[in-house]
Amino acid sequence: METASKDLIIEKTANSKIAQVDFDNLPFGKVYSDHMLVCEYKNGAWQTPKIQPFGPLSLDPTAKVFHYGQSIFEGMKAYKDENGKVFLFRPEENYKRFNISSERLAMPAVPEEVFMNGLNELLKLDSDWIPTTPGSSMYIRPFGFASGSGLHASPADEYTFAIVLAPSGSYFAGKVKVKIEERYSRSANGGVGFAKAGGNYAGQFYPTQLAVDEGYQQVIWTDDTSHEYIEEAGAMNVFVRINDTLLTCPTSDRILDGITRKSILDIAKAEGIATEVRKISVKEIIEAAENGSLKEMFGAGTAAVVSPINAFGFRGTDYDLPELNDSYANRLKKRMTDIQYNKSEDPFGWRVEVK
Amino acid sequence: METASKDLIIEKTANSKIAQVDFDNLPFGKVYSDHMLVCEYKNGAWQTPKIQPFGPLSLDPTAKVFHYGQSIFEGMKAYKDENGKVFLFRPEENYKRFNISSERLAMPAVPEEVFMNGLNELLKLDSDWIPTTPGSSMYIRPFGFASGSGLHASPADEYTFAIVLAPSGSYFAGKVKVKIEERYSRSANGGVGFAKAGGNYAGQFYPTQLAVDEGYQQVIWTDDTSHEYIEEAGAMNVFVRINDTLLTCPTSDRILDGITRKSILDIAKAEGIATEVRKISVKEIIEAAENGSLKEMFGAGTAAVVSPINAFGFRGTDYDLPELNDSYANRLKKRMTDIQYNKSEDPFGWRVEVK
Repeated sequence: METASKDLIIEKTANSKIAQVDFDNLPFGKVYSDHMLVCEYKNGAWQTPKIQPFGPLSLDPTAKVFHYGQSIFEGMKAYKDENGKVFLFRPEENYKRFNISSERLAMPAVPEEVFMNGLNELLKLDSDWIPTTPGSSMYIRPFGFASGSGLHASPADEYTFAIVLAPSGSYFAGKVKVKIEERYSRSANGGVGFAKAGGNYAGQFYPTQLAVDEGYQQVIWTDDTSHEYIEEAGAMNVFVRINDTLLTCPTSDRILDGITRKSILDIAKAEGIATEVRKISVKEIIEAAENGSLKEMFGAGTAAVVSPINAFGFRGTDYDLPELNDSYANRLKKRMTDIQYNKSEDPFGWRVEVK
Repeated sequence: METASKDLIIEKTANSKIAQVDFDNLPFGKVYSDHMLVCEYKNGAWQTPKIQPFGPLSLDPTAKVFHYGQSIFEGMKAYKDENGKVFLFRPEENYKRFNISSERLAMPAVPEEVFMNGLNELLKLDSDWIPTTPGSSMYIRPFGFASGSGLHASPADEYTFAIVLAPSGSYFAGKVKVKIEERYSRSANGGVGFAKAGGNYAGQFYPTQLAVDEGYQQVIWTDDTSHEYIEEAGAMNVFVRINDTLLTCPTSDRILDGITRKSILDIAKAEGIATEVRKISVKEIIEAAENGSLKEMFGAGTAAVVSPINAFGFRGTDYDLPELNDSYANRLKKRMTDIQYNKSEDPFGWRVEVK
């Protein structure tokens, strides 16, 4: 069945897969809902977006995404409350950042109507797919890539924007041992580290695997010039608690302006927690670990919300962090997820209902 | 018609497009031959490679190449001589570098048999497509990307290796005005700049467009830490001639180990040209331009071979380079292309006949 309006074409699936899904045992980002949004950019303009059955994309082998890495994405979630209402969390921030990434990758900006209305209609159509078991949510993946073809190393003339939905259980958010990395780097000054560009992730896999081989689960990236300052934790922003002060590094052209990061800063301030946004040196962290003032470290991002770190390694020495009963990590995660799942007031005005 | 051996399946096209091609007016990298090689990596092993009609690839929308940038490539050429013999130029160097890139991007190494035998058979099958007008050649694009799906930010479990062929006219190799870039950077210390990774190219497009808007055609990249040293010219290695000495910067984890670059160094040495491989500061170039000792600058890469630079801009001031009758650029390009097209002896043993 296909319905069309001026702004959106909807082609519903004839064969829903929903009965095949075990919603009590959802993995993260591996099960996809019945539909996806696709919108193509051709001849200098975005075409009418289409919601269609989830399925393969067909691309010329010389599509520039395969050769020149023009690809960006966002990570979002939709949450269903006890009454079946569905909410997004600060979606306008994802939309804005998507186009900040677009610009840096020389890709055309996606219109707000295509992104926001498309996402809203897609979520309504597949709302039965939004899981409700504790910790689960609908992971949302808007992405864009160069579908135009040609082997000349220059921007493509055609692009595809798409959104897929993955009903997901909790991202692994157990405590992890991380390695402070001094040889490999995530991003350059004047590079694309602040963008959610595909290439930023591919470059992390090999150094992360080396760290895994050494017994760590993740890497703490440092600046590529001096390796004296920490920047991100794996693919997340990083927070450090020294005594009772919560620290995180300032965003830059190397560091992603994380939505979870800034939300946590706002919640912490509202909770009366002292926060500082400033460069954090490896030396300071080591000293704090040695003198007992280092209380917590955690990563922050959409997928895991907060991912506590229970030990870190630096130049072959491992430093354990204390086990706290009332950690900032747990407290901030609870405040934030309570807002996200409509279990508490939303003093910041972050929730947006899908209707 | 499909033929198969243990090592290679060949499915020939029923409808050759060759009659539709104007071989006297070939663009660069926009016309493709009848066939392509495709080989998939699944369940921990490379499957039997297949030569098949050139056509679209079908991919899951959550294939990791769209999201996490695992994509690499090589650029090569095949040359047809007066007698119809076909040659490759140092193909083993491309093969080696392809797997150096693979490793850094956490992708599985491609077996030599798949790459080399596949390329050889593909070129034989589409040998009528290799152009012979002056300056033209068969541009060869081996590439690999993550075709395995999943939204978890980790390496894919399936990959595709492919080779497409593009009969091509001369790459634009006219003289260009370049901007020495101090704000944006191409690569980080400890990053992936030495790899032919897609993401390295996407990150260059926006700064290059800004330079184009200012009246330049390309960018000279400098190191991301101090911006005091030049590194690459657009997507090519860069050479500078001061008085009669030919300089190029050493390769590093930020700078591609170009095959044209090292071949030019070898030819220059054989020609009795003084060469130096060392860091080249912007300050030195400006001083040499001002005192008249800066004779030439040029980019070097497979597509254009040598791309002379006739002016550069730095902090808003443009510096012209002299017009030389007997430039190193022209002399080295001629020596190199004479070897490539079998018009001269090959003292270095670089030519490999396709047969």
